[in-house]
This record gives sequence, C-alpha cells and structure tokens, in this order.
Amino acid sequence: MVDKQQHKVPEPTLKRLPVYLHYLKRAYERGILTISAPQIGKELNCDPTQVVKDLATTGVKGRPRVGYSVHELIQAIEGFLGFDLPNEAFLVGAGNLGTALMSYPDFKSYGINIVAAFDSDASRIGRSSSGVNIIHMDKLPELAQRLKVRIAILTTPAGVAQEVAEHLVECGIAAIWNLTPTRLNLPEKIVVQNTSMYANVAVMLKKLKDTESDNS
Amino acid sequence: MVDKQQHKVPEPTLKRLPVYLHYLKRAYERGILTISAPQIGKELNCDPTQVVKDLATTGVKGRPRVGYSVHELIQAIEGFLGFDLPNEAFLVGAGNLGTALMSYPDFKSYGINIVAAFDSDASRIGRSSSGVNIIHMDKLPELAQRLKVRIAILTTPAGVAQEVAEHLVECGIAAIWNLTPTRLNLPEKIVVQNTSMYANVAVMLKKLKDTESDNS
Repeated sequence: MVDKQQHKVPEPTLKRLPVYLHYLKRAYERGILTISAPQIGKELNCDPTQVVKDLATTGVKGRPRVGYSVHELIQAIEGFLGFDLPNEAFLVGAGNLGTALMSYPDFKSYGINIVAAFDSDASRIGRSSSGVNIIHMDKLPELAQRLKVRIAILTTPAGVAQEVAEHLVECGIAAIWNLTPTRLNLPEKIVVQNTSMYANVAVMLKKLKDTESDNS
Repeated sequence: MVDKQQHKVPEPTLKRLPVYLHYLKRAYERGILTISAPQIGKELNCDPTQVVKDLATTGVKGRPRVGYSVHELIQAIEGFLGFDLPNEAFLVGAGNLGTALMSYPDFKSYGINIVAAFDSDASRIGRSSSGVNIIHMDKLPELAQRLKVRIAILTTPAGVAQEVAEHLVECGIAAIWNLTPTRLNLPEKIVVQNTSMYANVAVMLKKLKDTESDNS
C-alpha cells in the first residue's frame, strides 16, 4: 500500500504536506476517522485534484466512496517527511528570535528537537529556556561530534551569518535552516533552507499597495 | 529615470528585493558608492542576469562601465516595496513567537511598525515588550478604526486563527501576515501572506533525508 517515491517531490507539495498534517491531526482529535480529498480541499481552501496528487507522494491512496483513513494519512505524512523520528538540532544565536524558537513547543511534533543553543555573548551563556541551555560557541565543535547533530537553526545577527555557517559546516552540520536575511555561500552538498521574515513582509506590503491602488 | 512598473512583479523577485536591499545597505555603510550586477550576483550567490532583471522592476538602470549607484538603488527598492513609509501593524497573539516579533528591531527598516499587540489571555494584558503594549482583544475594533491600521501579524494558536482572522477583517484589516500553520479562508480582496515555520522545516528535513540516502 505504501510505495514511497522519495525523490523529486516539488517544493510546493512539500510545503503543503505539513498543512494537511496539521489539519488531519485536528480532525482525528475530533473523532473523524475517514476523509475525502474534496473535504480536505474545502477545509483548506485548495483544489481537491491537487490534494489527491500531493497525498499520493506519500504512497497512500484513498478508497472509492470511503476516502482516506485519517490515521493512515497522518502516519504516512509523518514518515515521509521524517517527522516521526526526532531530528536533533542546534540553535545558533540565542537572541530574540532564537529564544522564541527555543520555547516553541510544537517543533517536536514537526520533527525538530532543539538539544542545545549556542551564543558568543557571555551574558546569555548558562541561561536556559524551555529546558534548552545556552552554551558558548566554543563548545559547539565538540558537542556536534559527540551528539552527531546534523541540523542547525541559524538565528545570529545577519552580519556574522556567513562566517558562523562556514564554521557549522566544518563541525559536521549538513543542513542549515537560515532565518537570517543573509544569503549563505556554502558547499553544494549542504542543505540550506532560507526563511526570510523580511521577504515575506515585502511580498505582503507590495500586494497591499497594489490592492489599494486598484481600488483608488 | 524611475519608471515604476507597479503590477505583476513575480513573487520570487519580490522576495529577492529585500535580500538585495539588505546587502546594499551593508555595502553603503562600508563606503561602497557604485556596484555592478555581477558584483551583487557574486556576493549573493545568484545569476547576474537575474539581478539585472530584478533591479529593473524598481525602475533603476545601471550605467555601462559604472554600474548602479548604491544609494539610488537603496532608495528605489525601499520606495518600490513601501519600506520607506511606516506601515503600522497590529500583532495579534502575544505568545512566544508574537513576543519575539515585538522585540525584533529590524522590522522598522523593513517597513513594518508594530503599534500594539493584542491577546485574550488576561495574564498577558498590560505587559509590554520593546515599547509595544499588550492590550485586550476587546479593544481591537475601536483602535483599528481610530488608528486606521490595515495590517495584522497573526501569531495566535492555530486552533483559533480562522476565527480571529475573520474578526480582524470585520475590523477593517486588509492584509494579514499569517504565521500560524492554519490556512485561512477569507474574502478574496484580503491580502494573506502565509509564513509557515513548519513548512520550511518540512522542506529542509526532506532534502536532508534525500541527500543522506543519495550518499548511502
């Protein structure tokens, strides 16, 4: 039943899968055991054909007149995305945004377990937030090796992001979730996921400006 | 010289413009007055032809053998994106992520000025972070009307996001930056910008998984 097509899943599909997962978990909590693609599409405001295509990437197929098993779908999406296994991550840069992410309880159900946070600002070292300790950057190489951590969440000031990222790669980090506005220049084998808050603000402001000039 | 093409700018271009802006501001601080597209491309790890195309959307053209005036580019991008005018915004949901965004100093230089934060949790009301006060949700309709605020940053728990967003629209909010994993179902004229942290985590974890299975 589950025939995983691991590779070449388009990024928009990958980004929609956690949205389905979030919705399906809430439906399951409300006692909904089976669901159809048109129902999911209606609830999430998207095209049912797209829903069918997206869900097929996880290997699960719906049955005619019955639809999907909600439980099976949840497990398939979690397995496909790697959310079912804890992915241990370091948080690097324990400023405002970093500290907020440390105490974001939902990350665990989305596959990320922040095991330690690092900073070079002495006034932050030794503090902890939601059970995660802030440790000096000097200790990162040894801990990365000992704990075999492969993922880093980068929340440093933009000006030092490139330099810190290079250091992380030297320490064995294979994937960086880059929340700084800096574009990182790293070896191709390193997975870099950019989430620029500012880029999203830019798109929103521009769309608002356009909407308002249409109406005037 | 500046011939603005306001409409139909592709979203990837809109998302790259703040990246150029960030880079150009730092270059200007270092005393760099003119710059070429290949220089920008090299620094930001992107195709110079793309850089020329992207910058052309703001109406600024480079001069042969001289390049772009860094100052002129900064002003053109800021004006084009609406970053030069303060866009007043309400933050709705003053939990961990909300509080972090309240104290994010850089938003102001990216066109967003958070003037008030709202929550319905009594224990949070009256507190303030970086000069922004947390006010009860009940006061939002009156304040939205009085201050003519059109933008809201949505950082509520996912379960109440739809309900709160509908309320915001009734209060005259025209653009919502949705940081919850909930997909909002709102009238078409409302600008909704989704930034799902989880979606980005999903893409990163999947790419890492694929890289590691390629190597094994």
